[in-house]
Formats: sequence, C-alpha cells, structure tokens
Amino acid sequence: MSAVDSALTRAPAARPALPMLWVNGHRVDTSTPHLSPLDRGFTLADGLFETMRIANGVVFRLAQHLARLAAGARVLAIELPPWLPDMVRDAVNEARAAGLAEGSARLTVSRGVGAPGLAPPPVGETRPTVVLTIAQLPAIAPTTYTQGLTAHIARGRRNEHSPTSGVKVLAYTDNVLALAAARAADADDALWLDTAGHVAEATASNIFLRLGDTLVTPPLGCGVLPGITRRAVIELAPALGLTVAERVVEGAELHDATEAFLTSSLRGVAPLVRVDGRAIGSGTVGPVTQRIMHAYAALVHRECEEGAR
Amino acid sequence: MSAVDSALTRAPAARPALPMLWVNGHRVDTSTPHLSPLDRGFTLADGLFETMRIANGVVFRLAQHLARLAAGARVLAIELPPWLPDMVRDAVNEARAAGLAEGSARLTVSRGVGAPGLAPPPVGETRPTVVLTIAQLPAIAPTTYTQGLTAHIARGRRNEHSPTSGVKVLAYTDNVLALAAARAADADDALWLDTAGHVAEATASNIFLRLGDTLVTPPLGCGVLPGITRRAVIELAPALGLTVAERVVEGAELHDATEAFLTSSLRGVAPLVRVDGRAIGSGTVGPVTQRIMHAYAALVHRECEEGAR
Repeated sequence: MSAVDSALTRAPAARPALPMLWVNGHRVDTSTPHLSPLDRGFTLADGLFETMRIANGVVFRLAQHLARLAAGARVLAIELPPWLPDMVRDAVNEARAAGLAEGSARLTVSRGVGAPGLAPPPVGETRPTVVLTIAQLPAIAPTTYTQGLTAHIARGRRNEHSPTSGVKVLAYTDNVLALAAARAADADDALWLDTAGHVAEATASNIFLRLGDTLVTPPLGCGVLPGITRRAVIELAPALGLTVAERVVEGAELHDATEAFLTSSLRGVAPLVRVDGRAIGSGTVGPVTQRIMHAYAALVHRECEEGAR
Repeated sequence: MSAVDSALTRAPAARPALPMLWVNGHRVDTSTPHLSPLDRGFTLADGLFETMRIANGVVFRLAQHLARLAAGARVLAIELPPWLPDMVRDAVNEARAAGLAEGSARLTVSRGVGAPGLAPPPVGETRPTVVLTIAQLPAIAPTTYTQGLTAHIARGRRNEHSPTSGVKVLAYTDNVLALAAARAADADDALWLDTAGHVAEATASNIFLRLGDTLVTPPLGCGVLPGITRRAVIELAPALGLTVAERVVEGAELHDATEAFLTSSLRGVAPLVRVDGRAIGSGTVGPVTQRIMHAYAALVHRECEEGAR
C-alpha cells in the first residue's frame, strides 16, 4: 500500500486528532456529546451522507454532492434544511481561515429524533440532524499512489435490488465488515460482486478496468453508487483519447484487465494492481491509469483554484 | 388494522411522550444530547440492537436476546461490556419500580466513537456505546388482534447474501423505507422477498404460513432474522398438535396459505389476513393462529411471572 493511502485509511494518527465539527449549523467541540440517543440516524441508519474532497480550501464539485444528497433525501422523504449549502460553504471557509486547505468534509443528514419504532414520523414533525466534519488530508496529486492498491473479493454480495441501491444511506455496516476483513487479509480494500455475480464496486470507491482499448466501469444497475469522481473520470476520458463503457462486468473479467483503478472523493484515482493475490496486468501502475491520475489531479486543482477566487 | 397495533406502531402519542433512557449504564434525561456525532453507530450503522418485550416487569427471554446480541458482536468484532446483562436487569427493575410493568426495551450497542473512515479501530481502542430505552406498551394478550394485519410486498429485495444477513445490525434504512411505503399504501407492513424471490420476513417481524396442516416459516438462509418470538412459536407448536417446517417459501405460496401470522417481540403473534389486497384464507383470524396467539400470550405471562419472583 502506498504511504498516502496509509495516511488516508490506516493511520488516523496522521490526521489532526479530531476533525472540526458542526452540528445543525453551529461549530461545536468534538469532545462533548451533541446527539440524542433517540436520533434515527443512530437507531435505524435513517439518513444519508456525503464525503467530499476539499482542495485549495474549496469543496470539489459541491453542487454535485448536494444534488446527490437531495436525490437521496427525496427517496427517504427527508426535508433538507434550506440553509444546508451555505452552511457547508461557510464551514469550509472557516476551516480554510484556520489553515485547513486540503482535506475531507463529511456531511451527514439523519431524519432526526423520533418516537420508538421503524415508521418515520411525518415530514414536518421531525427536524433533520445535520452534522459536518472537516479533517485534514494530503492533497490530491498524480504522484500519490506509486505502488498501487490491492483488493480481495468480499465475502457476501452487494444487493443491487435494494430500494436504496445507489443512494448513499447510513447503512454501511456491510462495507465496514468487508473492509475490516480485507485489512485482516492484508489487502487495502474489498470488491463487491452483486447478487448476480457482476462486479459492483469497492467498499467506498467505484472501479474502472482497462479491457483492451476501453475503460470499463460497472453500470449503476449493479449496486453501484453514482460516484462524483466516477463521473469526473467518465467526462475526462474522451479528451485523453480513451473510450469509456458503462457495462456489466463479469467477476472473471477482473483478471482480463490490463489495468484497474478505484475512484472516490478521498482517494481520487487510485491504481488497483492486485486482486485476490493475482496481479492485474503487470501488477504495477499502468500508463492509462497514470494519465487519468494526472488529468484528475489537474481537474481538481483547476476547479478548486477557480472556486477559491 | 387493530386498535392495539395502531397503538404499537402508528400512534406514538399513545405511549409516554418519551421513553426512559440509559446511556453507558447511567440513567439520563431524554431531552439532552448524550452521543458524539462521531459515534460510528450514527455515521456508519456500525452496531447492533435488540428489541425486547417487558411483561410483568421482566424481559421475556432476555438470555436469548443477549445471546443473539453476543453472536452479532462477534461478527462485528465489537467487545460487549461485561456489565451489560446486569445493566439491563437493573434498568428494567428501575422501570418496574417507577410503575412500568408492560413495555418494550430497546438495547443499542455501537462500536463507539472512531476516527473518520470506514476501517474500524482495533478492539480495545474504542469503547462501545450502549443505549437502552424502555417505553410503555399494552400487554401481550390473546385478544390483542381481533381484525388482523395487512401487508404488501416490498419494492426491492432482502439480501440473503449480505455478510450481516441474520444479524440485527443498525442498517435498517431499507426496512424504514419499506414500512413507510406500506403505510402510504394503507397496509400495516411490508413483506420482503429475498433476491431469489423467496419469502423472507416483514420489516421487523418473522412470518408463518399455514399451508395444509403444516405451519411453515422461511429458513434463516432466506435473509431472515432468527427471531426470539419465531423460535418460541416453533417450540410451542408441537404441544398444540401442529407440525412446523422451516423451508423455502415461494412468493406465490402466500396465496395458497389458509392462515398467516407475523411474530416479533413487540407484536407477539399477530394475524396477517391480507397481502397485496388479496385475503389469506377467509381474510379473518384463523383457528390455528388463535391457538398460537393464546399459547404465546400464556407462555410470556408464565415465564415473566416466574422471572419476577
């Protein structure tokens, strides 16, 4: 695993001890409690989240994150507070003023406190709980991943038939377990197959494979989250002379790929060089992956520099 | 829907405004916050819960609930505090002393506060968060459900291939959504099919069908939670001259059933008389269901009376 991936995912000590924290729009201390134990986010995973990349003191593609959150909120019938976008911008500005220019922002919105039981209270009878955390991270750079990541195939399957498939709901237990199992097996991440046996994604990243001259990524119907970085890569590829196909990927095709990479807001574009102990292609970071890494890093820096003006 | 089911599930106002609440073993006020927004139960549904029935001031089959919780904790590698069983007993005693003899107890255990990211901190580096809520409910009685419940088939599928299938993890978003959709369609509950199209269970209840002379319930392999009430019914049935089979149930068999009922700690044994608008059998509470309801209510009262001595 690369040094930066280690910083991203294995060594919280490399980050500031505690992130900056906002609850319902107010900056608060991380060491004191702020949530009710009756919050349905805690009791029933009744809520949504977004994990975003801060570069140059600006959230990369905040509008897309907020649009995805709003789409999820419609599925769950949670009414987002109208002040949400401004709150995120103000908080990120506050973090930048405090010296945090490169980092991550996690926005969580739960349905709020409710009476016992599964049935959600009617809209208007609960106030959603909004939590934002901002933490420092190394900047996205084309040189971030020199060695590439390894993965194993997760035990169990991703449910592409879930009513919340593709919605970033708080129900992440399976991803937590799959990642822990991968780490125990000395892999950096786990790859989910869907219940039909098709490749879906990693525990918190989308996947791309180079198959022949095409960059292939599983379609949203395979239990895949519509990643913001995934979309950026799909948009970037043609200018690099690459053809992208969103299509069903059989599990066996992982070993036909000559290159592969994972994408997420925190990782950016991260080469995947080994799955279940077998090398992908040469087992090193391939040329197409390198071009995408460069182009993505440049895109983030360009957009966030413009955004910071 | 019956009046009592309405009290159980639709009308929180029929309960005391707020339940009694314990956090990490301490009785606390429900109106103030007690959880960190960084609690992994809130951010990632990284935890477990049990919902239990209190009768005559005693938890029905507490040992079985705690054993199921412990099994789940092993899957998630969460170390349960050794004081947990005593804490629950003490809290229930305190509630009984305060006049609450019939009710529900919900025990939630999350992995606790952790650094950002999916990877769980090593055991020993986090302290699990333990929340217990106790609320009043009408007693289990054979006369509780005179009309029977209705259900519709949930949109989407239950994932029998999840690594947490059969584990009562906090990831209940799909159940919340399915129940809300059922209520919007004027049904009392939703029934999940698994990804193979077999009947699994309702959003928080197991299901039994009377098919010919046999009481049939789906096996645990169909994405079913090993319910404490389900197990009690399986144990009760032979003494009533009934044969029970745990076997795969095709969706179409719902309409072959002459009777059906749902089981859960809060509902007890609740007749199911209509699915997707079609009557099951006569569409009324059938004779076998009535015998099971009587026998189950007697069992709860008997065991909890002994337990209270």
